[in-house]
Amino acid sequence: MNLEKSQSKKIFVLGGDGFCGWPTSLHLSNIGHDVVIIDNLSRRNIDNELEAGSLTPIQPMGTRLEAWEENTGKKIGFYNIDIAEDYDQFLQVIQSEQPDAIVHFAEQRSAPYSMKSPKHKRYTVNNNLNATHNVLCAIVDSGLDIHLVHLGTMGVYGYGTAGMKIPEGYLDVEVQTESGDRVEQQILYPTNPGSVYHMTKSQDQLLFQYYNKNDSVRITDLHQGIVWGTNTEETKMDERLINRFDYDGDYGTVLNRFLMQAAVGYPITVHGTGGQTRAFIHIQDTVRCVELAIANAPAREERVMIFNQMTETHRVNDLAQLVSKLTGGEIAYVSNPRKEAAKNDLHVKNDLFLSKGLNPTTLDNGLLQEVTEVAGKYAHRADHSKIPATSTWTKEQKPGVPEAKEESSV
Amino acid sequence: MNLEKSQSKKIFVLGGDGFCGWPTSLHLSNIGHDVVIIDNLSRRNIDNELEAGSLTPIQPMGTRLEAWEENTGKKIGFYNIDIAEDYDQFLQVIQSEQPDAIVHFAEQRSAPYSMKSPKHKRYTVNNNLNATHNVLCAIVDSGLDIHLVHLGTMGVYGYGTAGMKIPEGYLDVEVQTESGDRVEQQILYPTNPGSVYHMTKSQDQLLFQYYNKNDSVRITDLHQGIVWGTNTEETKMDERLINRFDYDGDYGTVLNRFLMQAAVGYPITVHGTGGQTRAFIHIQDTVRCVELAIANAPAREERVMIFNQMTETHRVNDLAQLVSKLTGGEIAYVSNPRKEAAKNDLHVKNDLFLSKGLNPTTLDNGLLQEVTEVAGKYAHRADHSKIPATSTWTKEQKPGVPEAKEESSV
Ligand SMILES: NC(=O)c1ccc[n+]([C@@H]2O[C@H](COP(=O)([O-])OP(=O)(O)OC[C@H]3O[C@@H](n4cnc5c(N)ncnc54)[C@H](O)[C@@H]3O)[C@@H](O)[C@H]2O)c1
Ligand SMILES: NC(=O)c1ccc[n+]([C@@H]2O[C@H](COP(=O)([O-])OP(=O)(O)OC[C@H]3O[C@@H](n4cnc5c(N)ncnc54)[C@H](O)[C@@H]3O)[C@@H](O)[C@H]2O)c1
Repeated sequence: MNLEKSQSKKIFVLGGDGFCGWPTSLHLSNIGHDVVIIDNLSRRNIDNELEAGSLTPIQPMGTRLEAWEENTGKKIGFYNIDIAEDYDQFLQVIQSEQPDAIVHFAEQRSAPYSMKSPKHKRYTVNNNLNATHNVLCAIVDSGLDIHLVHLGTMGVYGYGTAGMKIPEGYLDVEVQTESGDRVEQQILYPTNPGSVYHMTKSQDQLLFQYYNKNDSVRITDLHQGIVWGTNTEETKMDERLINRFDYDGDYGTVLNRFLMQAAVGYPITVHGTGGQTRAFIHIQDTVRCVELAIANAPAREERVMIFNQMTETHRVNDLAQLVSKLTGGEIAYVSNPRKEAAKNDLHVKNDLFLSKGLNPTTLDNGLLQEVTEVAGKYAHRADHSKIPATSTWTKEQKPGVPEAKEESSV
Repeated sequence: MNLEKSQSKKIFVLGGDGFCGWPTSLHLSNIGHDVVIIDNLSRRNIDNELEAGSLTPIQPMGTRLEAWEENTGKKIGFYNIDIAEDYDQFLQVIQSEQPDAIVHFAEQRSAPYSMKSPKHKRYTVNNNLNATHNVLCAIVDSGLDIHLVHLGTMGVYGYGTAGMKIPEGYLDVEVQTESGDRVEQQILYPTNPGSVYHMTKSQDQLLFQYYNKNDSVRITDLHQGIVWGTNTEETKMDERLINRFDYDGDYGTVLNRFLMQAAVGYPITVHGTGGQTRAFIHIQDTVRCVELAIANAPAREERVMIFNQMTETHRVNDLAQLVSKLTGGEIAYVSNPRKEAAKNDLHVKNDLFLSKGLNPTTLDNGLLQEVTEVAGKYAHRADHSKIPATSTWTKEQKPGVPEAKEESSV
């Protein structure tokens, strides 16, 4: 598992305190990379704002890093920097640490949060676009040849592209020339984002395209599906290393939310009819994909490399049924707070990661159970009032709240 | 020329102190609209920063508006607001004034300025994206049905799309489905912006697409060519109403720069071989197009309406030759500070504005002469040291400065 010394790299993990960033940092450190986390802890501050929190008892960064060193003898660096705001400080750290690669998780990543109010829309746009632009600008400014690995989302594609298998970032099209000939072209997949958050990821793509073209920055953009699961091999080593588990209406993502609802005896809330099909990936595969992306950097003059980072697709209602069968939890159909088609199909290519050696962790009962156990273990920490999805996409829509009734106890 | 009372609208002109915004404000006011300018005067501050300025003696906003009232009896309102920063104030003005339409010119619009340094790149991204997003967010937040007319650029298309006539915003493509069928789709034209500035305009398009889809905001996006000329019927009424004329290496756009260089006896500087083809429009047509865009608002559920706002295309070297023939000015070929193809063709559709009644002002000798006269009249105000294009697209490139030699005097 451990890298050859020559393969060991200095890697910055931006957003390394978050749900994906923390286990990724540990994994990269564990296999022998020299990891430095940069995070402004904004996600923890948002917990304060929402009066919600991780179901699992996550530790402060200091404790996390101490525990990691105690367990493995490895050190991970940490800087508290807002990469959207503190450009000069960020650049200075790049110049002094000279990373080989930067993994960029540091964005506001909740679609419902991005739709909560004008303030939240504006924060998401301002934070995400300036964060990504600052990273690119600083890489060029530093004069170093740094490989940027960015976490994008499957959501940029838009769901339900009639009958088409979603390619990995680029689409083959045929267009007509003035003389009437038809020519084949490959274009960046035309995006159709479903929320202000997803829109910022579409806009990120244009930042990558431009800085790659103008400055030959090496960039890998990972279009990730919805991540489920909580722990990875590394976060299981010590309870102080535990990963966050979001269950509130804004940050809780669909599968984890179902598992948690079942575990605490809250109805499994399906938005609308649950006809939407989504792409999924387990957190263990996320960390492995980032490892593979770092090991397979594009060449200097190559265009932006785009991978679909997902392993399977499921219809939301099927997942609800599965979780219900597994746990005995009851399903509640609530109004969909999002503005989207009631039903869609989704076929996605993910050949690139499979070709690089990804061996997917699939969603079978055993794994689901593992998460249910985590949810069950910490169920007493749940604040049930935070579970409903209260953000709506327009003022006219209703939140995704189940009809008032007695909640069954676990 | 005057509107029927029933057609008169309350119109906000964001960026109404600028090169396009000022004559547009006067024109809209002149034909009977109720105009309110919002501008943070950042363009004048950039003049201070660059130690450059308009060749023409533009007056402070107070004097401009006084002169307008004296000449026409019409009042134009003015608020000094940074729309990228002062969201609450901006929203408040929308709520109290209740505009029918907002014309949005308020962005940093120079490609060379956007490439000057990391600070300038970051300012352009931050200013332009937050400005456009705040406008959209505030329109939705206000609950009013406001038609947004935005000034985009032809530059988003990228130059040199092999043999294809550039459509108005949307491209017909054929894609292959999983079952092997080929289906026709219409997509947002895949952009290929040529600078950080142009990139922000591509990103703006995604903001429009999203807010139109989610909130049914009525939006017209005008993909404008390079504007030339200085004055319009309204700005000619009184010298205090004169429009700005940028001639410096950052803000001077290609045709106006040539005319001015010829007028002051500075070599006509062609970047590279001048093989690039560009789209142009006269400032008089800009103001008329905005008038037409306002009169032809899309319906509430209609997608974003995109017009190509240009009237003719020319190869840069041909323009240099034309200006040289007209004025006797000498041409200097300098290194191209931009990163772009040395040569490209450009064929552009502009049927939409023609169908709405635009009668183009074309670039013939007479008109060029008019601008040369303006440039000649104020030639004594020119600071020759500000003429060369000093911003480069990458650190490796050389600025567009002519070889040192005696400048011929006019
Ligand atoms: N969780 C998912 O299901 C999922 C799915 C697809 C894509 N992604 C993407 O993966 C990335 C990570 O997601 P996550 O679930 O770990 O989110 P998260 O919110 O748990 O983690 C993001 C981290 O970035 C930090 N951060 C945000 N803005 C910052 C700034 N300006 N400066 C410094 N740090 C900043 C936060 O404090 C947080 O620790 C995101 O970009 C997200 O869009 C996540
Ligand atoms: N001039 C051209 O040749 C040309 C060509 C194509 C498109 N355009 C577009 O037309 C628009 C206007 O161009 P212009 O040549 O008049 O530029 P300009 O710089 O002369 O005018 C822009 C005005 O907007 C104001 N502004 C900028 N940011 C602002 C903010 N955050 N808040 C409030 N005001 C702000 C500036 O002070 C300035 O007065 C721009 O969006 C530009 O991209 C211009």
